[in-house]
Amino acid sequence: MKIAVLGTGGGARAHIARLAELGHDVHVGTRDPHATLARTEPDMMGTEPFKDFLAEHPGIELHTFGDAAAASDGLVINGIDGHNAVAALSAIADQLAGKTLIDYAVPYVYRHESEHPWPTPWGVMPKLDPCDTDSLGEQIQRALPRTKVVKSFVTQEQTTVVDPKTIGGGDHTMFVAGADTGAKQQVTDLLRSYGWNDILDLGPLVRSRGMEMYAHMHSAIGFALGGHFGLKIAR
Amino acid sequence: MKIAVLGTGGGARAHIARLAELGHDVHVGTRDPHATLARTEPDMMGTEPFKDFLAEHPGIELHTFGDAAAASDGLVINGIDGHNAVAALSAIADQLAGKTLIDYAVPYVYRHESEHPWPTPWGVMPKLDPCDTDSLGEQIQRALPRTKVVKSFVTQEQTTVVDPKTIGGGDHTMFVAGADTGAKQQVTDLLRSYGWNDILDLGPLVRSRGMEMYAHMHSAIGFALGGHFGLKIAR
Repeated sequence: MKIAVLGTGGGARAHIARLAELGHDVHVGTRDPHATLARTEPDMMGTEPFKDFLAEHPGIELHTFGDAAAASDGLVINGIDGHNAVAALSAIADQLAGKTLIDYAVPYVYRHESEHPWPTPWGVMPKLDPCDTDSLGEQIQRALPRTKVVKSFVTQEQTTVVDPKTIGGGDHTMFVAGADTGAKQQVTDLLRSYGWNDILDLGPLVRSRGMEMYAHMHSAIGFALGGHFGLKIAR
Repeated sequence: MKIAVLGTGGGARAHIARLAELGHDVHVGTRDPHATLARTEPDMMGTEPFKDFLAEHPGIELHTFGDAAAASDGLVINGIDGHNAVAALSAIADQLAGKTLIDYAVPYVYRHESEHPWPTPWGVMPKLDPCDTDSLGEQIQRALPRTKVVKSFVTQEQTTVVDPKTIGGGDHTMFVAGADTGAKQQVTDLLRSYGWNDILDLGPLVRSRGMEMYAHMHSAIGFALGGHFGLKIAR
């Protein structure tokens, strides 16, 4: 398949590398391809320059967000930061029309790029906005009425999402939520190709609220264990 | 042990019955014991009158909140509704001083008793207040500085909390959070007597935020499965 991944951060790279490994044509979108390729220093998260990543993963094409979305033949993975996602995606609504958009962002609030956006082991948590009575997944769907938005991936680390067998032999659970059954099936098929066997459809996109709000619990478990983990629903 | 359970709802009853079965002296607290015993109709959740429950569980004593807390020799389980908990517990701060208080409430907001307070299968969710930047567990701890508050139980249904082996042979995970290590050990011991083997200490009480905010995810999973389940952290 021709799959677009919007974003060049650590989460996006996990999908880009795995999709290429699985034989897909991967079209990566970034705000400004020239600026992305011009970077020679690691970013604030310590992630290597994207041009170095591209050199290690030949055959992957870098475009603008809109050109990457247009190159997809049906599936687009949104790896744009939560606080920029609605604006950036709205700007390419035409290129996303009719396609399935997988959103996995947590809408963490931070005021400046220099602020560390992640929860800290000593208990400081970033705020979520929206939270509780709305979700980023629902906001994106409202902004893109012609696109089929599916929330998924968000309850697991990205390295685990693309390769679940690294945890507990792969016996843990992935979730999908969204309005369109066919779109959820596309995402479920992708997840199966990643190695997931236990994929639970949580129903409509309102379930994004719980999936995003789980972020605090996810952080807490990660700090407590000091290592990687998966979430298994025991029946 | 002499253990106090504050509240007479379904969650409290699960603990009362299980603690009595395990041989503890159970002291139940309610706002007005005469009013509690005078009820002859099921409540809005369809729960049988408490006097019928007491008739089926001989030897359990019903007191005011304060007298029940005073009768405990160290452990108190808070089963008071989230929106009433801080006020009701503050009123008996002296009787709770020096004791371990286990809180498992979700701070659902509803405006009138006649409003159904729970999430619905069609996606309507009650709001949480506090949420994200504070939690009920932390509010209770601030209101009761002489009491050791431990947040636990909240990520599972009460029937499963008191008997984890009913799900997946008991191979799932329970969480505790709080400032006092000794208090968390008391709760861990209680959980082991209930049948829990995998108990994860999430750290300080700030983790209550994630534990309470998980409520939306818990509801979503329950609706999706249409049955009981447990949460297992796969390593």
